[in-house]
Amino acid sequence: MDVRAEIQKRTEEIARVIASYLPAEEGYQRTVMEAMNYSVSVGGKRLRPMLMQETYRLFGGSGSVVEPFMAAIEMIHTYSLVHDDLPAMDNDEYRRGKKTTHAVYGEAMGILAGDALLNYAYETAFSAFALEPENPGIVPALRVLAKKAGIYGMVGGQTIDVESENTRDMTEEKLDVIYRLKTGALLEGAMLIGAILAGASAEQQKIIEETAGAVGLAFQIQDDILDVTGTMEVLGKPIGSDEKNHKTTYVTFAGLEKAKEDAEHISKWAIAHMESLPVRNEFLTALILQLIGREK
Amino acid sequence: MDVRAEIQKRTEEIARVIASYLPAEEGYQRTVMEAMNYSVSVGGKRLRPMLMQETYRLFGGSGSVVEPFMAAIEMIHTYSLVHDDLPAMDNDEYRRGKKTTHAVYGEAMGILAGDALLNYAYETAFSAFALEPENPGIVPALRVLAKKAGIYGMVGGQTIDVESENTRDMTEEKLDVIYRLKTGALLEGAMLIGAILAGASAEQQKIIEETAGAVGLAFQIQDDILDVTGTMEVLGKPIGSDEKNHKTTYVTFAGLEKAKEDAEHISKWAIAHMESLPVRNEFLTALILQLIGREK
Repeated sequence: MDVRAEIQKRTEEIARVIASYLPAEEGYQRTVMEAMNYSVSVGGKRLRPMLMQETYRLFGGSGSVVEPFMAAIEMIHTYSLVHDDLPAMDNDEYRRGKKTTHAVYGEAMGILAGDALLNYAYETAFSAFALEPENPGIVPALRVLAKKAGIYGMVGGQTIDVESENTRDMTEEKLDVIYRLKTGALLEGAMLIGAILAGASAEQQKIIEETAGAVGLAFQIQDDILDVTGTMEVLGKPIGSDEKNHKTTYVTFAGLEKAKEDAEHISKWAIAHMESLPVRNEFLTALILQLIGREK
Repeated sequence: MDVRAEIQKRTEEIARVIASYLPAEEGYQRTVMEAMNYSVSVGGKRLRPMLMQETYRLFGGSGSVVEPFMAAIEMIHTYSLVHDDLPAMDNDEYRRGKKTTHAVYGEAMGILAGDALLNYAYETAFSAFALEPENPGIVPALRVLAKKAGIYGMVGGQTIDVESENTRDMTEEKLDVIYRLKTGALLEGAMLIGAILAGASAEQQKIIEETAGAVGLAFQIQDDILDVTGTMEVLGKPIGSDEKNHKTTYVTFAGLEKAKEDAEHISKWAIAHMESLPVRNEFLTALILQLIGREK
């Protein structure tokens, strides 16, 4: 299997699924719809919906009930980037080489487009009830989505991150919490929702959530390493931007060599943990390996 | 019935219900929880949850399943105010005599607290499934909540409002759409959800939604009238602030006298429409009358 080609193919398939759930641009309020659709269209590898779909398949899922959730989690990921890029937050004019939403539509519309995407994520996820009214996983999946996206997940992590930047009192423990919440929680949500909708047992769900958490952590450490060693092409942002922004990262605490060892160790653990399950999805394993070793 | 005293009493009861659904302030992310709780605590009459609860009672509802939805709609209303007050939007430092959320916690935390409230609204509403797992109204109520809060409702209205302020090309038709979406949609959502959860028929739901839409419109016209004629005490904001901000209102198009006539006419229609139903809630009727004639 040519993993990179396969990922590329599925990224395009998933982008089409997501596009089918985006709003038509119409009415007096069409600008916010345009801004929402622009924000999502700028997106990258559609990693969260891909992990969700592949975990759903791992447990034998074959229906379309997962699709509104795939669209929903990408909308939530996108809204978080739109708001992160705002002048009062990271103040970024570009993301992945394209203008950020507020840079195109103005700051007020950037705020509203983010709000609109978050709300529309739930509006979209609710359509799962019409697809499989009898699927007992929909309500638990909704609960997971809200928890992982909110104050006990992603927004919680963003909060600690914003506060730490202001106060400059980062500790290793706090950094770990930020990584687990800001990056990890939505990856956990993605894989967990896939498992739940496919009918995985509570024990299997636990293993998937732990796997996703480890993947998120390894992914984030890898990101810190690449910020020091990587190229603009691989990372999509200027090299050494963390240092320039006085950002404390995993590399700050552990040093480059130890960070590499830890990322390697955590990655191996994640794969082994997932492979302790009695089910297999070769592409999911390959995807996670690719994801963690992003320089390949 | 002393309506004002009764409203005051129920406002306090509802504030306690809402408070019981707010997050504990704990963990590294406690600041966002504090900011959320502060934002909600600044709130006023709890109008939307009150209308929801009374409509629920109108159709014979007597359970607690409505409570998470009451909390959810107040969180959504609150997040919209928090984001509306941001420097990039209306740039307000005070609301109801208290500092706005971003004025207390900073702009970044204002954005995140709004996001957190919107997300937590859904997290909260989902707890209805645990209260009455067999209530067939919960899923339809969730759909209404998302639709009325989003681009086809409140956020849509905010978008048109923001754009019109920039372009200064307001028309009567556009102003009507803004009022129906920005103010009306969430009132419609409030009453409709109450009706749905209590098991109202489709025809009854339609009448309730139309009633709420008319109440929202009369309420908004009344607000415009009071901006011209009212006192600081009644309105909670400086008199003539619309004119000062060059805001086009209903009074701009219709003139003061016609605006008063229209508000009166729409109010009477709303009450008559609701009273065409075979059910009665004396307090709900009194509440709506009080609400529309806010100078009493």
